[in-house]
Order: sequence, then structure tokens, then C-alpha cells
Amino acid sequence: MINTGRGILTVVSGFAGSGKGTVMKKLISEHDNYALSVSATSRQPRPGEEEGISYFFRTREEFEEMIKKDELLEYAEYVGNYYGTPKDFVFSKMDEGKDVILEIELQGAMQIKEKYPDTLLIFLTPPGADELYKRLKGRGTETDEVIAKRMKRASEEVLCIKDYDYLVINDNIDDCTLRVHDIIQVAHRTVRHESELIKRLESELTAFI
Amino acid sequence: MINTGRGILTVVSGFAGSGKGTVMKKLISEHDNYALSVSATSRQPRPGEEEGISYFFRTREEFEEMIKKDELLEYAEYVGNYYGTPKDFVFSKMDEGKDVILEIELQGAMQIKEKYPDTLLIFLTPPGADELYKRLKGRGTETDEVIAKRMKRASEEVLCIKDYDYLVINDNIDDCTLRVHDIIQVAHRTVRHESELIKRLESELTAFI
Repeated sequence: MINTGRGILTVVSGFAGSGKGTVMKKLISEHDNYALSVSATSRQPRPGEEEGISYFFRTREEFEEMIKKDELLEYAEYVGNYYGTPKDFVFSKMDEGKDVILEIELQGAMQIKEKYPDTLLIFLTPPGADELYKRLKGRGTETDEVIAKRMKRASEEVLCIKDYDYLVINDNIDDCTLRVHDIIQVAHRTVRHESELIKRLESELTAFI
Repeated sequence: MINTGRGILTVVSGFAGSGKGTVMKKLISEHDNYALSVSATSRQPRPGEEEGISYFFRTREEFEEMIKKDELLEYAEYVGNYYGTPKDFVFSKMDEGKDVILEIELQGAMQIKEKYPDTLLIFLTPPGADELYKRLKGRGTETDEVIAKRMKRASEEVLCIKDYDYLVINDNIDDCTLRVHDIIQVAHRTVRHESELIKRLESELTAFI
């Protein structure tokens, strides 16, 4: 579709094992109206990670300066490192008409929704708990202990799904990607997003009579 | 798509000349998940009109009894006749899993949204006021006076579009029908509509840990 006007800001969250990373990659490769937000972090780059693509790498001091200047949509600290979403990148992409997608966790999603109620919040889930367990186990990369931790976390996260706007089942990557795409594109037709069109119709009709 | 659970209730309104009747017919002929609501009226049937298809024909007394018993989603009186939407028909279709569409005017739409906030409100418009005028004129069935009245009415209705959920441009019947279809189908993924799925995930995940 052709984007007219400002893009939509969408947060996608999901259980570890929901396949959200794969869905996001597919969505972005298939449609050119999307931009994936790049996070800032105070942790050290790992081999192969590139500035501005993997992350915006900042020192701890620089990151704290960004917090102080309210330059982040959301941020959190994990094991001694900051992670956050720079406003600048997101808003400039939206101004270009791009639909910007943030793949972030629950707490960050709630921070953003509070400040920007127009943000679309989508939660991805496998069809059920058995399937979630099977997928985590199937990765073959995590110990039983880690898998148990992730299942426990999912049982906590599930209580917050009601604070999202949409819940999408990822039973099949193609179907799920299309569902997410449709949700975001439909958001372009909300009266809130179409306020410019409404204003134009108002002035045209008033001029007519 | 396969409907699981209860259908979505959608109200479609639009300017006279927005083409909403054509869009609704196309939507219903192309997808079997929709049901068009049948209105009740106290006016006399016209030749060719069938009970339960064109309208549910009721006497004035029967209609007033329906109002008293709160059996209508909305109603109004035009030139001495009652028109309204019987709850019974709408709710039974929704329980069957059908997405029910009501093609009604602004006042009725607002009555329903107030009582049933989950209702989806869609407003259709031609691309602009010139096009609206051209369409009304092009029908060749209405006097200039009637057309002027309809344009005036549109200039009043436009002020209430912001109370709808979605605004859809009808520049092309096929595109417009697809847009309306997408909006309604996406509504099936709202967390409000997916509350049963959320409950199931909660209980499965709780049982798992």
C-alpha cells in the first residue's frame, strides 16, 4: 500500500518462543513501508555487531544523558546494561511515512503506551502452552532449567496480554505475518489517523453549501 | 476466514452517495461470514418488499411495544413511521458466529455505540466533496433541490465522523470492499474479542509450571 501521511508506531511483544523475530524479519522483507526500530545500549558491541544496525552503542554516561534529556521512548536496565529506544530514529522514520515496528518486552510496551496512547500493541503467542514448550525444547540450545524459567515467565506475561490491543496466534509464519500486516494497515484508517482527511472533507463540504 | 466464537457487530454509515449500499452487497456476496441486519418498520410494505428480507413489518402498536420492552438496538421516527434494529435477529446471528452489519445513519450508530461500546463503527466517504456532488448528480434521479439538501446534510454529518472508529474512502468499489472486510476481520484479533483464548493460555501456562 502507499503510505500517505505519518506512519503507525507498532510494538510487537510475545513469549520467548513465539517466533516474533522470524515474523518481523518476514514482514520487513516483504513490504517496504516498514522500518524496524534500532535500540540504543550501553553494553559493549559483540563481534559482527554494527553501529546503527544492530544497536546504537553508547557509553553509560551518554545513555544516562539520553535519559535525562527524555530522548528515549522507553528504557530498562538488564544485568548492568541499559537498553532503550531512541525517539529520534523512530519519529524521523514515522515522519517519512514509515510504519515503525518496535520488538520490545512488556514493560517497555507499557511505558510507550502510557506516553503515546496511539501506539498499536500486538502480542504474539503460539497456539498453546504445549506448543510453546515444544518450540523452546526444539531449539536444542537451552538447558531444561532455562526452559522452565521461560515457561514461568510466560505464565506471568500472559496476565498482561489484556493490556495490549491485539493478540495474534503464530501457528504458521505466513499466516501470522499477514495478520500482523493487516492489523497495522487497518490502523491507517482509524479516524485518529485520518484526521487530515476529515479536516479536508469538512472544509470542502462547508465551501460547497 | 473461519469464524471462531462470537461475531463482530459493525455499523456502516456514509454520506448519501458514498456508495455504501453497493459496497455492502459486494461484501456479503463475496464472503459467507457476514449477515446483514434486517430493520423493523411500522410503515406499509411497498410492492415487492418481503417480510423478514426487506423489513420486519410491524404495526405502530407492535413497534411501540418493542420499544417498551427494549427489544431494539436503536430506533428513530421518520415522517410518521418508526424504523429500528431488532436485537433478537442481530444477537442470534452473532451467536452463530456471523459478523453482523448494520447499514444505518449517524444517530442510530451513536445510540448503539453508547449501549454496546464493542461495536465497530465505519464511515464511508467518496474521495472529496466534488466527487460526492458528481455522484449525486450522476444518478439523474434527483432534483437540484434534493441534491443541495443532501450536500447540506453531508456538511453536518462530516462533523461527527470523529465519533466513528474508521473512515474509509470509497474511490473504487473493489478496494473499498476489501478495506471494510479487513477492518472487520482484524477486529477479531482484539484482546477484547480474544478473551477466551487469553483465558485458555492463562490456565494452560499456570498448569504447566
